[in-house]
Amino acid sequence: MELFFSDVIDNGLILLDQEESTHCVRVLRHRAGDEISVIDGRGTLYCCILENADPKGASARVVSSEPGFGGHPYHLTMAVCPTKNIDRFEWFVEKATEIGVDVIAPVIGERSERKVLKTERLERIVRSAAKQSLKGAVPTIAAPCSVRDFILAAPESALKMICYCFDGNKSTIKELLENCSNDIYVLIGPEGDFSPEEAELALSRGWKPVTLGKSRLRTETAALVAVAQVYSAF
Amino acid sequence: MELFFSDVIDNGLILLDQEESTHCVRVLRHRAGDEISVIDGRGTLYCCILENADPKGASARVVSSEPGFGGHPYHLTMAVCPTKNIDRFEWFVEKATEIGVDVIAPVIGERSERKVLKTERLERIVRSAAKQSLKGAVPTIAAPCSVRDFILAAPESALKMICYCFDGNKSTIKELLENCSNDIYVLIGPEGDFSPEEAELALSRGWKPVTLGKSRLRTETAALVAVAQVYSAF
Repeated sequence: MELFFSDVIDNGLILLDQEESTHCVRVLRHRAGDEISVIDGRGTLYCCILENADPKGASARVVSSEPGFGGHPYHLTMAVCPTKNIDRFEWFVEKATEIGVDVIAPVIGERSERKVLKTERLERIVRSAAKQSLKGAVPTIAAPCSVRDFILAAPESALKMICYCFDGNKSTIKELLENCSNDIYVLIGPEGDFSPEEAELALSRGWKPVTLGKSRLRTETAALVAVAQVYSAF
Repeated sequence: MELFFSDVIDNGLILLDQEESTHCVRVLRHRAGDEISVIDGRGTLYCCILENADPKGASARVVSSEPGFGGHPYHLTMAVCPTKNIDRFEWFVEKATEIGVDVIAPVIGERSERKVLKTERLERIVRSAAKQSLKGAVPTIAAPCSVRDFILAAPESALKMICYCFDGNKSTIKELLENCSNDIYVLIGPEGDFSPEEAELALSRGWKPVTLGKSRLRTETAALVAVAQVYSAF
């Protein structure tokens, strides 16, 4: 099943952008009258009939729609400090999308080696991973901000969990997910961990310290294990 | 903490091979008398004093040893069909090592697009991932074999789980791990799934069909979710 993406849907007519149109008409050789499947990136799958097979701008008529296509029963925001080697972060973004994540927020910690991040490539990665893994919703890539600002902006009502290496009593994600709100935030620090000030701020704002187990995990691996633990708990 | 690897340990004297010696002496500039940490790849960490700082073949005297260093309370064999794009399989091998796996068995299914696999690179990946994630044991990379042969060779007593896409009643890994043996086998098929014959053979040999949840996961992602679920269950 090949999915196309479009967020231009008006009166039952879907317009594909040039890249999607070329892929649909030139690469896959679809012709007017063919049935194609389109996701809107907000959760809905549309079954359509291709009307105008223009490789520069194709259009398709909606026949039926399926909201919540490939969705999951939780809302997960992963706030992760981008790794020095960006491939590792991009890999996490692809895999998290396959498993099930709603928002990926790149956050910059006081000890982050990488202080800047371009999000254009990440947008392409989540879109293609969502199509590949048959999901109607494409995760949102939030604008990068500081760990401090992210902690302060997170909503009161959500279950907010922070993974750090400092000592102290920690719960597991599984324990905290039992009869909790489904609005879940997980914060993963940089290679050099959070600063003590960042960790204290999080705790003072109601973030719960969690452990991912005994293994010493790289930033992107810790983030993916957290996604898998949330996914597996529902 | 920087770990070196050596499996040449005799009468409390450890010999580093040329690559490890060069890294220790030339790159990290260790001198005779320095304390270094060495893993033997079989689970033990050795604290040593560098005796002969020869960049072609250094030697170190064992001061103390820690068996089971960075170990985990289960024995997990992951039998996974290598992906067409080998980067994806190598990525799985690295991440599984960080999280905790004992044997990685590349298996070739009837529907595998990749029929051959060189294991030299995988050996290097597991060794460096084990050192990086502070584990005394380096996972074993088994010689590639067919899915059929692997199914037939797996021990009677182990908990054997197969992930496939055919319909039917399936358990979750978490359910099957409750009060079971800690000797765990997980079998993950190729992009095109197992053949019906392979799946039937596994069931007839006592393999349990498991689901990894609703998301449609790539081969390497499914394999990593399985590792994370086993790791998180102990």
